[in-house]
Amino acid sequence: MLKHGHTGPEAGPRPWQQRAYTIIFLSDTPAGRGFDVALIGTILLGVVLAVLDSFDGIVGPLEQGLQGLEWLVTGLFTLEYGWRLACVRRPSRYVLSFWGLVDLAALLPGYLALLFPGAIFLSAIRILRILRIFQVLNLAGYLGAEWHLVSTLWHSRQRILVFLLSLSTLICLMGTLIFVIEGPEHGFTSIPTGMYWAVITVTTVGYGDLVPHSVLGKLLACLVMLVGYAIIAVPSGLVTAKVVGQQLNDQRRCGGCGHQGHAADARFCRRCGSALPLPQGRRASDRAASHSADQETH
Amino acid sequence: MLKHGHTGPEAGPRPWQQRAYTIIFLSDTPAGRGFDVALIGTILLGVVLAVLDSFDGIVGPLEQGLQGLEWLVTGLFTLEYGWRLACVRRPSRYVLSFWGLVDLAALLPGYLALLFPGAIFLSAIRILRILRIFQVLNLAGYLGAEWHLVSTLWHSRQRILVFLLSLSTLICLMGTLIFVIEGPEHGFTSIPTGMYWAVITVTTVGYGDLVPHSVLGKLLACLVMLVGYAIIAVPSGLVTAKVVGQQLNDQRRCGGCGHQGHAADARFCRRCGSALPLPQGRRASDRAASHSADQETH
Amino acid sequence: MLKHGHTGPEAGPRPWQQRAYTIIFLSDTPAGRGFDVALIGTILLGVVLAVLDSFDGIVGPLEQGLQGLEWLVTGLFTLEYGWRLACVRRPSRYVLSFWGLVDLAALLPGYLALLFPGAIFLSAIRILRILRIFQVLNLAGYLGAEWHLVSTLWHSRQRILVFLLSLSTLICLMGTLIFVIEGPEHGFTSIPTGMYWAVITVTTVGYGDLVPHSVLGKLLACLVMLVGYAIIAVPSGLVTAKVVGQQLNDQRRCGGCGHQGHAADARFCRRCGSALPLPQGRRASDRAASHSADQETH
Amino acid sequence: MLKHGHTGPEAGPRPWQQRAYTIIFLSDTPAGRGFDVALIGTILLGVVLAVLDSFDGIVGPLEQGLQGLEWLVTGLFTLEYGWRLACVRRPSRYVLSFWGLVDLAALLPGYLALLFPGAIFLSAIRILRILRIFQVLNLAGYLGAEWHLVSTLWHSRQRILVFLLSLSTLICLMGTLIFVIEGPEHGFTSIPTGMYWAVITVTTVGYGDLVPHSVLGKLLACLVMLVGYAIIAVPSGLVTAKVVGQQLNDQRRCGGCGHQGHAADARFCRRCGSALPLPQGRRASDRAASHSADQETH
Repeated sequence: MLKHGHTGPEAGPRPWQQRAYTIIFLSDTPAGRGFDVALIGTILLGVVLAVLDSFDGIVGPLEQGLQGLEWLVTGLFTLEYGWRLACVRRPSRYVLSFWGLVDLAALLPGYLALLFPGAIFLSAIRILRILRIFQVLNLAGYLGAEWHLVSTLWHSRQRILVFLLSLSTLICLMGTLIFVIEGPEHGFTSIPTGMYWAVITVTTVGYGDLVPHSVLGKLLACLVMLVGYAIIAVPSGLVTAKVVGQQLNDQRRCGGCGHQGHAADARFCRRCGSALPLPQGRRASDRAASHSADQETH
Repeated sequence: MLKHGHTGPEAGPRPWQQRAYTIIFLSDTPAGRGFDVALIGTILLGVVLAVLDSFDGIVGPLEQGLQGLEWLVTGLFTLEYGWRLACVRRPSRYVLSFWGLVDLAALLPGYLALLFPGAIFLSAIRILRILRIFQVLNLAGYLGAEWHLVSTLWHSRQRILVFLLSLSTLICLMGTLIFVIEGPEHGFTSIPTGMYWAVITVTTVGYGDLVPHSVLGKLLACLVMLVGYAIIAVPSGLVTAKVVGQQLNDQRRCGGCGHQGHAADARFCRRCGSALPLPQGRRASDRAASHSADQETH
Repeated sequence: MLKHGHTGPEAGPRPWQQRAYTIIFLSDTPAGRGFDVALIGTILLGVVLAVLDSFDGIVGPLEQGLQGLEWLVTGLFTLEYGWRLACVRRPSRYVLSFWGLVDLAALLPGYLALLFPGAIFLSAIRILRILRIFQVLNLAGYLGAEWHLVSTLWHSRQRILVFLLSLSTLICLMGTLIFVIEGPEHGFTSIPTGMYWAVITVTTVGYGDLVPHSVLGKLLACLVMLVGYAIIAVPSGLVTAKVVGQQLNDQRRCGGCGHQGHAADARFCRRCGSALPLPQGRRASDRAASHSADQETH
Repeated sequence: MLKHGHTGPEAGPRPWQQRAYTIIFLSDTPAGRGFDVALIGTILLGVVLAVLDSFDGIVGPLEQGLQGLEWLVTGLFTLEYGWRLACVRRPSRYVLSFWGLVDLAALLPGYLALLFPGAIFLSAIRILRILRIFQVLNLAGYLGAEWHLVSTLWHSRQRILVFLLSLSTLICLMGTLIFVIEGPEHGFTSIPTGMYWAVITVTTVGYGDLVPHSVLGKLLACLVMLVGYAIIAVPSGLVTAKVVGQQLNDQRRCGGCGHQGHAADARFCRRCGSALPLPQGRRASDRAASHSADQETH
């Protein structure tokens, strides 16, 4: 099963390590929450800088200001990285963890830019760190319901795999067919190009950079579009069914034994006999949704 | 909680203010309903005029006729605005309210056009007033079921926020990647342009003004399309689950003990034995939309 | 409520009228069913002819063959029209009914083509008659479940109207905004053109014939796309909820009193105590779907 | 009813035929599973070769290496084909079966390429054999739940047919209308071209190779887009309702009396009192999905 909540490395043994660890890796103290806010702020600043960096026309003092801010962000990221290294029990394990690699990827570009000036993509890598926001939200318990949905979908992973396999097969066959039918003179230069067209068509994106010109090709295109129209219903149906099921199951939970799924008019838990909370319709309905969210996180 | 129904400002103390207020702000008298119809008519006329105004080729007497009608609409809006100002208890509060600002925005263009002739966008602002139609419908009780759906979705606001955050992150990352891969020579002149492409692709709109040309870019495009194909299921699933849940919950509620979830053909509450209200199919069908499921069985 | 089944005009009084009426307007005799098959065949031949007619390159003997077939179809349609006129009680009522107008529209082009040769669209009008297929299917009882779904959606007509009104307002506002932002130099020549762009974008069709060029226009486009992405969930949710509700309610019907909605494991009707039919999973499941369809129509 | 599981031809009478049959046609022995893996590997190699073959620029030693690999794949396919022929009771029945034709289509191109060199499409035919993967997965029991969903949709075949018929009629009518409105000077050269445009528009693909230019044509396009937006909800609703229904019905089935629909936390059948199997969440969740598939098939 997928787990959620705190899954970071352990804190080091010394008291200052414990204290720093609480601030950096956890978010249940005011200092920890403050650190989270500062971290998200710095990450967003880094994203804005990467975006501004991508524009060609910025020159003069403005460019130098941006440069300065970039060094600030790189400095803050480096400080944080060192701090994280210092307070965990096994630094190597943090360095090689997913978040450790993301953190490293976010500060390296600043230094590599000294060696390879003008490498615009270096700055862009930093944008990866935006993923940290999800970890912060997860620590703060905001992602509880989402993890639950993801783990419910995980139960359908076999069905999802079969769906993806069918989609891939369809794209392979249709891409090959359109390549055979239309050929290089209409832009379908190879089977992979045909597959690219099949993806564009079956997902109903329809850029229009590759379109069939022959009658047979147009017939095939119609078929692919209608099939795409039909199978878009499959992922939609899977997710909807899960959300509906989740909604029906999470309605009421026994305070005594924790079991869910009681009928809307049951007054006692059918497992342990404790009195059940009143149905949602009679509570302050304001709290209903957040309540079910809370239940999931505890 | 979101509230609906009458949420306007209070009426002034004098009798004529009370009377005028009932006509303008409420719609439970024949005069009030007549005012609403006239208001919607004037608004739609204003919209038609703004649309006609946007055409370049209208000249001569036709143009002068339009001008005349525009002055008529502006006059009517001004009259209505003054009337509203006169009959509320605190005019300043109305002026600064959402609807007060919309009303002002609808009549100002007519006067500003004297100062800045040819400013085509001024006339277009008036189209904003079309929103008033929703307020009129709300007063008339037509939006009840919709407010209920919106407030049910409001319970999922945390999940919607997480969905939007994930979508934004995906768009940021994909926009950056396509900018790094394709670069300015294929039209991806900056990271925001890349993000614009990512939005076009992930929502399956696919204008085709920006398309990847390199093999890596095409692979990324396929990934973005398939991901877009998958996550379109999420908002769909959320709304569907809410509508299904609403349909199941709203079926019938016992007048005696308040319990819901009675079967469509039950005549007595299975909890307290009180007679249940008749299923919807047998009530005035006007109110049918909010509890529709029952009718199907008869 | 929407009604379905036979809604045609009444038969005339004489025996041969009754007999002809049974053949032409009903389909519960072998002759009536044979007539239906011949009618659908002739309609499809007419459609194929209209399609072939639209090609420019058909000349010589092939063209003359097509011409001959067209006269045959026109002749058959005329014969049928006369027959229908002859056997109904009040011919004028049939002529002015929806189907009467469709039937007339299908045979007129053949004669008008003598007066206005080369009027290609005349032949195309005949394609309208394809709608008759639905009437035949309806008579044969094939549309029962569909009428039921349509009539269920009819219960949500208020919600659908509010949805359409919101969509129209959104399209008006966004079309006006893009016209103000982009202006005629980027192809947005008037507010209606802007609205056309808004429809293309919000429905995620994305032809690409009109695209924003300014930064502000692109931002607006992103907003419209994401909103379109979100509200596509609304019609989807409405239809899905209705189909789910229909499925849950139609599961089992008491043979004694006709009530539906019994729990999956109930063995006796909770209304009249008769034994219930076994749940679907244990019947010959082949017949399950058509069986529930039958239930709806009786 | 649709059947699934082993539906191949029967084995021949001799012991070595029985043994070979078990390996090739079944997958419940280690050797059978090994054969399946090798078969899928060879098929994927064939697909990769067909894809590489479609590129124009591959010459020299690389081309010769590909040629060699292609002969290897053709050889392996021939060997397998012969083996299959040898061990079934009635070879002619296998040859004319769906899979027999697919297998033949996959090895013929290799030999035909000797006669018609340069016929690029020959190699592409081999990609059809990718369908064999589904048969292998089916034998291994991976497709159980999918077959169940397909057979549930099969119950809605009448509704699906009516939907397809409505869609076809809509496409016919709209394609004819746009042809009449826009005509050949805007690219709508015939009614089928108009229908191709209607498919592109109604499925929200929107290539942009055919777009309306007249005001009336744009109005029609808006109508088609909005209708397409609405009716995309229908297949989505059908599939979702089926998945939801399947989820609700398949929750747990009593081993004693066969009744379904027990609550997730019930430990005993409410009908006969037998102990129920544990809920999915408490089993090794790895097997959960395939288990529910098993339940369906027994």
